Amino acid sequence: MAKHFDTQALDRYFAAMADPTRRAVLERLTQGPASVSDLHAPHQMALPSFLRHLRVLENGGLIVTEKRGRVRMARIEALPVRAAEDWLATLRRQWEDRLDRLDTLAEALEHDTKGDAQ
Amino acid sequence: MAKHFDTQALDRYFAAMADPTRRAVLERLTQGPASVSDLHAPHQMALPSFLRHLRVLENGGLIVTEKRGRVRMARIEALPVRAAEDWLATLRRQWEDRLDRLDTLAEALEHDTKGDAQ
Repeated sequence: MAKHFDTQALDRYFAAMADPTRRAVLERLTQGPASVSDLHAPHQMALPSFLRHLRVLENGGLIVTEKRGRVRMARIEALPVRAAEDWLATLRRQWEDRLDRLDTLAEALEHDTKGDAQ
Repeated sequence: MAKHFDTQALDRYFAAMADPTRRAVLERLTQGPASVSDLHAPHQMALPSFLRHLRVLENGGLIVTEKRGRVRMARIEALPVRAAEDWLATLRRQWEDRLDRLDTLAEALEHDTKGDAQ
């Protein structure tokens, strides 16, 4: 792609998104920062397993957590979602451009054929 | 999310995208179908390793391959890219909506405060 993308960052972002628990955490965090225990509450999963998922999100740069008193709060980071969406949009546009060129070519050929038939 | 997403499909799509070789194959295939050997050519990687990457893409539903005579051809599938992009766009819009609501609230509070000062 002509556009520059941070390859290692995209590896981390997509790997972090490839799990339903981690995507659910990201979805929850679009509604605002939340404590780790509030994030864990809706999941039928032992806390250590859940914390491993949070760590994947945090190490991947998709969330930031910080301790406020006794409570660890998490918030979503905007950049990874934008970068992943941007990569996908660029990919999609590349093949849409190609399909547009093929359409134009097909129309030109059809026009030529009609011209020949007259 | 209110919108329905196929969770297991998203797991496969994002896992398949979490690798630079596999993303490079997808990028190449936006320019049209290609043979497996043409896809392999730019990669400094043994063919069996490369074929494993292609299999991840094919099992994930991101590409389709078919044999034409002696040559195996691959093409990109549109749906996974659209579905992944759609999930990310929905996620982004959710928190943008929330930030918009916070802005509106902040403006309303500022307005009230100014009203009090007069």
